[in-house]
Amino acid sequence: MCELLGLNANTPTDICFSFSGLVQRGGRTGPHKDGWGISMYEGHGSRSFHDPRPSVASEVAELIQKHAIKSKIIISHIRQANRGRVCLENTHPFDRELWGRNWVFAHNGQLKGIKKWLLGFYRPIGTTDSEYAFCWMMDQIRTRFPAPPARPQPLWRFIKQLADQISEQGVFSFLLSDSKHLYAHCSNNMCWITRRHPFGTARLIDTGDTIDFRKHTTETDVVTVIASKELTDNETWNVMGKGEFRVFREGESIKFQV
Amino acid sequence: MCELLGLNANTPTDICFSFSGLVQRGGRTGPHKDGWGISMYEGHGSRSFHDPRPSVASEVAELIQKHAIKSKIIISHIRQANRGRVCLENTHPFDRELWGRNWVFAHNGQLKGIKKWLLGFYRPIGTTDSEYAFCWMMDQIRTRFPAPPARPQPLWRFIKQLADQISEQGVFSFLLSDSKHLYAHCSNNMCWITRRHPFGTARLIDTGDTIDFRKHTTETDVVTVIASKELTDNETWNVMGKGEFRVFREGESIKFQV
Repeated sequence: MCELLGLNANTPTDICFSFSGLVQRGGRTGPHKDGWGISMYEGHGSRSFHDPRPSVASEVAELIQKHAIKSKIIISHIRQANRGRVCLENTHPFDRELWGRNWVFAHNGQLKGIKKWLLGFYRPIGTTDSEYAFCWMMDQIRTRFPAPPARPQPLWRFIKQLADQISEQGVFSFLLSDSKHLYAHCSNNMCWITRRHPFGTARLIDTGDTIDFRKHTTETDVVTVIASKELTDNETWNVMGKGEFRVFREGESIKFQV
Repeated sequence: MCELLGLNANTPTDICFSFSGLVQRGGRTGPHKDGWGISMYEGHGSRSFHDPRPSVASEVAELIQKHAIKSKIIISHIRQANRGRVCLENTHPFDRELWGRNWVFAHNGQLKGIKKWLLGFYRPIGTTDSEYAFCWMMDQIRTRFPAPPARPQPLWRFIKQLADQISEQGVFSFLLSDSKHLYAHCSNNMCWITRRHPFGTARLIDTGDTIDFRKHTTETDVVTVIASKELTDNETWNVMGKGEFRVFREGESIKFQV
């Protein structure tokens, strides 16, 4: 299995603190040593770093921890390979363009038989079932919505339906973004926390490091972090259930009629 | 205008030496301070770094110079913005997937009226005429070749035709790769050099640094470097003419019937 990490905020925020916990699980406190990747939106663009080597030993991972790149939507993934060999093209997150927007996707789980499903426009570059499932989802979204829908709810419901459908093939916990929203789907092992005023301190499980968010935030900041497993041990994380799907925008979990 | 840098080799090769000359032109010896980017293929995947800040002041550019990432195909670009504001989504190289391969593109020049041309499948994420032209080319290639052609020459001729057609709108010097070949088209300011056994030494125009390639190569290595302007002053570069189109594979310029 792998581990996912996502951030959604109403103001550009760096992920240094959470990321420094996650990278430990890429070879030190966890077995996810088969590469890692991160995508950070900035305006309409996104910046991605991928490395097929363990995150604990990666100079690029070190750079990201040092130089606090700020973003409102971040998706990160550390990999323990089960399907698809260890190489750059099999390293999450994956991305594809639709409607002139960059869509980013990272997945935790295994999907049996997914590669028999018919693909249309998008084709995988690597050999993972994850990228294959992403291409299939993007094909379906493109076919149903050739242009961005005027109201987003039908799109959200459609993504939830696709997630349900793919989940029948196995474990399909994922983070997905269309550059405006962050979507999270849980088969197992997904939790999230929204931090807002009054901010407190947090302590990382994997390093013991603590941070006082009051020193790094303003009163209006709203920041949600989503992870496969809790990253801190002195806060209460919301644990997602099997089949649960959430849409985050501007740091908030959005309620909508499924 | 901007500056392009490309590498094509028959063995994974790092671009540290050439790149260290190029980055100087991004704010010190040259005016191209509006961002820079680089894409390096590794197997079927590619690794990209983009930064809307000047390359001379970029920590990521420093990282690339320090840690010699090796690749057989590399495309790099430093930008002096004329069309499209300075931001991440307007930073070359751009990429899109076709046939399960990642296509990478960087452009030097301005194209008037290109945004009136009809787009089909691929849409630009940013606002540059460069990315627009790339999307249009990819649409045309996809339509003409829904699957990779059995023999590559018809594809090469088609790309040359598209380059000619777009060149009527202005200056269209570009580097393009489909992960197997590196394509170079010149409107103005493109030159290339192929280094092979017996290797010699080279001196960078922008820093005065010298390198003895004999210490970094084997007898069978063939390495071509393509640049907007000569990077070294003690070697003879091949200057490309207006409308010239070249295909490079495994470090060699390939002859084919246009």
